[in-house]
Amino acid sequence: MKLTRRYRFAASHRLDVPALSAEENRKLFGKCNNPFGHGHDYVLDVTVEGSPDESGQVVNRREMDALVGERVLARLDHRNLNEDVPELARATPTTENLAAAIRKMLQNNWDLPARLKSVRISETDRNIFELEAK
Amino acid sequence: MKLTRRYRFAASHRLDVPALSAEENRKLFGKCNNPFGHGHDYVLDVTVEGSPDESGQVVNRREMDALVGERVLARLDHRNLNEDVPELARATPTTENLAAAIRKMLQNNWDLPARLKSVRISETDRNIFELEAK
Amino acid sequence: MKLTRRYRFAASHRLDVPALSAEENRKLFGKCNNPFGHGHDYVLDVTVEGSPDESGQVVNRREMDALVGERVLARLDHRNLNEDVPELARATPTTENLAAAIRKMLQNNWDLPARLKSVRISETDRNIFELEAK
Amino acid sequence: MKLTRRYRFAASHRLDVPALSAEENRKLFGKCNNPFGHGHDYVLDVTVEGSPDESGQVVNRREMDALVGERVLARLDHRNLNEDVPELARATPTTENLAAAIRKMLQNNWDLPARLKSVRISETDRNIFELEAK
Amino acid sequence: MKLTRRYRFAASHRLDVPALSAEENRKLFGKCNNPFGHGHDYVLDVTVEGSPDESGQVVNRREMDALVGERVLARLDHRNLNEDVPELARATPTTENLAAAIRKMLQNNWDLPARLKSVRISETDRNIFELEAK
Amino acid sequence: MKLTRRYRFAASHRLDVPALSAEENRKLFGKCNNPFGHGHDYVLDVTVEGSPDESGQVVNRREMDALVGERVLARLDHRNLNEDVPELARATPTTENLAAAIRKMLQNNWDLPARLKSVRISETDRNIFELEAK
Repeated sequence: MKLTRRYRFAASHRLDVPALSAEENRKLFGKCNNPFGHGHDYVLDVTVEGSPDESGQVVNRREMDALVGERVLARLDHRNLNEDVPELARATPTTENLAAAIRKMLQNNWDLPARLKSVRISETDRNIFELEAK
Repeated sequence: MKLTRRYRFAASHRLDVPALSAEENRKLFGKCNNPFGHGHDYVLDVTVEGSPDESGQVVNRREMDALVGERVLARLDHRNLNEDVPELARATPTTENLAAAIRKMLQNNWDLPARLKSVRISETDRNIFELEAK
Repeated sequence: MKLTRRYRFAASHRLDVPALSAEENRKLFGKCNNPFGHGHDYVLDVTVEGSPDESGQVVNRREMDALVGERVLARLDHRNLNEDVPELARATPTTENLAAAIRKMLQNNWDLPARLKSVRISETDRNIFELEAK
Repeated sequence: MKLTRRYRFAASHRLDVPALSAEENRKLFGKCNNPFGHGHDYVLDVTVEGSPDESGQVVNRREMDALVGERVLARLDHRNLNEDVPELARATPTTENLAAAIRKMLQNNWDLPARLKSVRISETDRNIFELEAK
Repeated sequence: MKLTRRYRFAASHRLDVPALSAEENRKLFGKCNNPFGHGHDYVLDVTVEGSPDESGQVVNRREMDALVGERVLARLDHRNLNEDVPELARATPTTENLAAAIRKMLQNNWDLPARLKSVRISETDRNIFELEAK
Repeated sequence: MKLTRRYRFAASHRLDVPALSAEENRKLFGKCNNPFGHGHDYVLDVTVEGSPDESGQVVNRREMDALVGERVLARLDHRNLNEDVPELARATPTTENLAAAIRKMLQNNWDLPARLKSVRISETDRNIFELEAK
């Protein structure tokens, strides 16, 4: 059985690849390259998989919320992804790289009884990224 | 081709495992253990899989709605899951157990031409459970 | 300027008017009269009105959340409206009476600088009730 | 990594299988067989799969939007599916056949670096169809 | 107290003013002038106003649904607004004229105890029209 | 008749009142005071009021979209409200001040036949601000 819990966070970012020229970055990212950045209300869905225990639960909701809250939301919510999150500053904070960073934050030392199955993140409701856990 | 139809029902429940003490239940389920129960507007997505027939349909919508209506909604909508649904009273009506009960209600003697693929149920939009049909 | 903040709570209830017979109650409320009750995820919108202060805010969000949380959500969330909320037990917990009870909970000794303008509550997204503050 | 982009279009249609009698069509499709047609706001989710390139993107959003816009939206948006889309006129414009037609429009000569993974289309939020790319 | 109930219907239409030339109509309505029409999933919110009766209800939900169902939905759902609704054929079925037609359908001989307050209709979630009852 | 059209834009901001100390700003705005800013997907509803003209429209949609697009969206979408919008830099970019700035952008030399009625802006779906046009 799969259980998905939904979380939200607000963050800002600017898309800019250092190896490219200003002109190439503008062409590649359009408005997302605007110098002072912009922001989004991200929606994060974390899916775990397992069998219900004797209390009828695949995972304890409070334990899962605490883990996601501490490892992900406390580092990303109301933050600037370029300035406040070292791994994204190095990698350009596209939503693809953000999804990969969140998977890594969750996957390292994942210690809940249910298995981490996938991470899905929406930048807006028109743009949804999904990444299976390794 | 997969076709998902969405249904809704309103129900109440109380989470309490008889084998645990009052204190353990309160700690495990928090507010969900409140003595007189609470309720939700559940969203149920039933997914079937098959090939379109000569009329261009994977399944006849009215037949599928009749089957889900009779086996699931008539038994759960505007009901108390602890008192009105025997299999859930025995199993603690967590959404995990509710999902398993709904899959069983649908799977026994499933007689539509399209194959039952999965059952997904949301307790709120922050809590989504998905179960593949066996 | 009007500011609306949205809150959610889950509760159960049963619609039954003591002055009416069992048959009349069944006819009047249909499935909402089922003996063991059912439940909903209510959405509560509280609207205040005022002018921004020197910090650019009509109301301090934390103060408003604390007031609504203490007076309304702590009493209704994960509760049974018939059993846990005395004013609704006496009045039949229709959403109309629930809206009036919430307005009263908020209006008595309202002590935020912004004026309470209205209370809106949705039982489901098909049923929305709105009540101006007196 | 999977990336889903969401598109919308408004179209009208009438469900009627030429090989069946008027009476059989009415029985099969109900109101969807009404002579002058009706319409919907369709939601189309196109999912691609691939690895982020050096700019941190699985696919260039503008290129993907241009391809979907030209091949699908320009042919379906604000159109009558029976009259304006030859492949659907021949096949009865059920959403199943519409999904298959859209997959074909996208799949032929798909020339983006990311692989086309699946097409999902909702006629209303109660009716969702999903088709894997071949 | 105001109570809003939400209804949905699917319909098709074509925007074309007979007094204008083909060229002027194309310029005025763009894609909405396409010859074979297109369609939408309309959302209709009907708001009534009154005081709760002794059962705690502003209006009996079944009576209100029956009235809106018979006068409005039975005439518009799965219909072509140009061909199936005489008053709209004469008036060009813009959503403005549709809103006015629905208000008239409801207002004539309105016989519920609660007062009709307003009618709101969304063509899509980007286009919302509201009309006070006279 | 009132017509509301919905627009969206993504922007970043930081809440900080220059007249207050760092400590007072942190206490007043919490996470919204984080040094490098954060962002949101704002939803903007612009409501106009008028009577349908002979084409059955209160306002020409393209003209209204062009006006809102040029005066508001081009200045705010994918921007940093502190750095890119002079009036908000001076006023602290709370959503209250943002709403007032948008009303001003629209109201000066408003030249559509329908009257500007109100401006409503949501920072997230929990926070909605509404301002009548003067």
